Amino acid sequence: MRKFFEVKTRDKSSQARVGEIKTSRWMIETPCFIPDATYGAVKHLTAEDLGQVGLQMILGNIYHLRIRPGTREIQKLGGLHQLMNWDGPILTDSGGWQVFSLIYQYGMGKVKKDGIEYKDHLTGQKHWLTPEKCLEDQLNIGSDILMILDYPVAAKAEENENRYSVSTTVRWAKKAKIFYDQHPKMKEKMMMAIIQGANSKELRKECFAELESLWPWPGYGFGGPTVNDEIIEYTASLIPESRLRYLMGAGPPEQIVRAVAQGWDLFDCVIPTRNARHGMAYTFSGPVKIYQKQYELDDSPIEKDCPCLACQGYTRAYIRHLLKIDEPAGKRLMTIHNLTFYMRLMKKIRQDIKSGQFQPGRLLDQLENSGN
Amino acid sequence: MRKFFEVKTRDKSSQARVGEIKTSRWMIETPCFIPDATYGAVKHLTAEDLGQVGLQMILGNIYHLRIRPGTREIQKLGGLHQLMNWDGPILTDSGGWQVFSLIYQYGMGKVKKDGIEYKDHLTGQKHWLTPEKCLEDQLNIGSDILMILDYPVAAKAEENENRYSVSTTVRWAKKAKIFYDQHPKMKEKMMMAIIQGANSKELRKECFAELESLWPWPGYGFGGPTVNDEIIEYTASLIPESRLRYLMGAGPPEQIVRAVAQGWDLFDCVIPTRNARHGMAYTFSGPVKIYQKQYELDDSPIEKDCPCLACQGYTRAYIRHLLKIDEPAGKRLMTIHNLTFYMRLMKKIRQDIKSGQFQPGRLLDQLENSGN
Repeated sequence: MRKFFEVKTRDKSSQARVGEIKTSRWMIETPCFIPDATYGAVKHLTAEDLGQVGLQMILGNIYHLRIRPGTREIQKLGGLHQLMNWDGPILTDSGGWQVFSLIYQYGMGKVKKDGIEYKDHLTGQKHWLTPEKCLEDQLNIGSDILMILDYPVAAKAEENENRYSVSTTVRWAKKAKIFYDQHPKMKEKMMMAIIQGANSKELRKECFAELESLWPWPGYGFGGPTVNDEIIEYTASLIPESRLRYLMGAGPPEQIVRAVAQGWDLFDCVIPTRNARHGMAYTFSGPVKIYQKQYELDDSPIEKDCPCLACQGYTRAYIRHLLKIDEPAGKRLMTIHNLTFYMRLMKKIRQDIKSGQFQPGRLLDQLENSGN
Repeated sequence: MRKFFEVKTRDKSSQARVGEIKTSRWMIETPCFIPDATYGAVKHLTAEDLGQVGLQMILGNIYHLRIRPGTREIQKLGGLHQLMNWDGPILTDSGGWQVFSLIYQYGMGKVKKDGIEYKDHLTGQKHWLTPEKCLEDQLNIGSDILMILDYPVAAKAEENENRYSVSTTVRWAKKAKIFYDQHPKMKEKMMMAIIQGANSKELRKECFAELESLWPWPGYGFGGPTVNDEIIEYTASLIPESRLRYLMGAGPPEQIVRAVAQGWDLFDCVIPTRNARHGMAYTFSGPVKIYQKQYELDDSPIEKDCPCLACQGYTRAYIRHLLKIDEPAGKRLMTIHNLTFYMRLMKKIRQDIKSGQFQPGRLLDQLENSGN
């Protein structure tokens, strides 16, 4: 099997490490943050912006792409990279989490032995989603890193529900592995499993052990909605050092710093982009809430020394004005700044680990500051 | 007086001409189209985009800027150029048209002898707008070309209303000229008057004659809502050849081509940007309505040979998808395309006039095509 992930440097005083993901076409240095391009676009940005921000990889969601523009349509148009004009790796999420939410919150579906029957939130159309179909869709649109179909539960699920989630996840992982073996093109793809088990250490451990007994997956994702930090740390410790550890759906800068110290390598979250649109800019000296009156006549950039388009050309006063008149250009500038900040944060973390100077406590103090 | 405008080439078979506007810092070649940056931003775009599109000048509206972010605030922040990071000329509209609309449609104001009392549409705050205040605000924010306060009427106004509009416009022009003489900084600014008279040739003529008797204004705007083409042509013929002729609020590409042939030099309109957001892309072979089903799998750019960001990187199918999911990046790409198209159209018109090959009829045939 192709070696998709390799640890390059280990931190001495924490579980943090610097690694490399090697897809068939690209190399990605970890710890790495990837933004959500749910429907084939990071909100407000084009591929030129993604490149300028310095993103290493983006995340598509196969649940959403299946609805619009449609996975078959994407395939006909040459795949997701070509459609988006994005010359970099794409990781696709299985959509298991979205389908779970539909069922859990709205009762719009039903989990069966071999898959999930659900109606999507947009068109109400019926879908029959299986572990095989989930991978086939991701393969068809040309994704580089594929997540297999899992079945999450709420963090505080009762034990029988939690057990059902784990057993379903493992059963479907087996089917995913069979699909992998039957499709030669899959050899070029990095395929990752997801560890469920909610807040139970015992079930997290069991889930990992059963998945690992199926196949030495090149990487594991942490499944389920946000649970407590102890479980996050414990789950990282279950995953062998040689595999990629993906903390799905995380997070704010502080959570990422803590998770890196626990040994997690990969992160995705809507927070930097969503908060950007709502007026919160991240900086190395704490967040700037741009709607605040104090920035009305502030002719400094969001963050000094930030090389992004927003900070190089525009003042806090102007960006505040643009957000106040609901001007999309303002939301774009904020998004560019926040993603640039995340890229700078991840780069600093990698450099610190490499030079033996990774100090999560000190970094957290800086980030939690609010003295802007 | 500084020479602000000069005709360089005259077309032999129409009234069209190529000219140069020289502000204190920039040169603008005419015929020229300027997009609306009403509140200090062309919707969806930053200054980098404006530069890349090749815009020669942009238009701000002093009525809107007075409300947000405020003219005093703009002045404190170094002026509108610095605020927007726009290194090019700015023309500001007096806002007379917006105030007229407030009064005409909503009864939110009253025209008095020396100015207009009105409540703005956003905050409901009372304003007392005089010809002097109107210029002072434009001067304070650093505008390069200033329009004086006028008072328009509806196209089909009765004669007494129309006469009142003309006499008010002329009375206020006199005050504008006194302000000009009293403020040394005004010498660096191009200040233009506006000809009212609705659909009456007699009143258009009278309005022009009275304005011209006050001062040889370097340029004249066509005032009032869209009226018939005959009046537009007639009004152009009233304005001496040596002065800039500004057809305010025009228009679709076809209207611009016809107006250039009548001798108009300058145009502004929300049409290219607004239609872009609503899915209509302009091309040299007719408009493309991107929402149409036929573009769902169309992997060609909006317009072949178009050098814009949208056409160089993205397909009709992708842009259609972005608009369908209401993704702002799609509206930005459409806006960039339409403004690039307008710039290419104006450049072609200027080149055709210079080379003696301006054929408005042929150009109109092309633009009104719908064979995409």
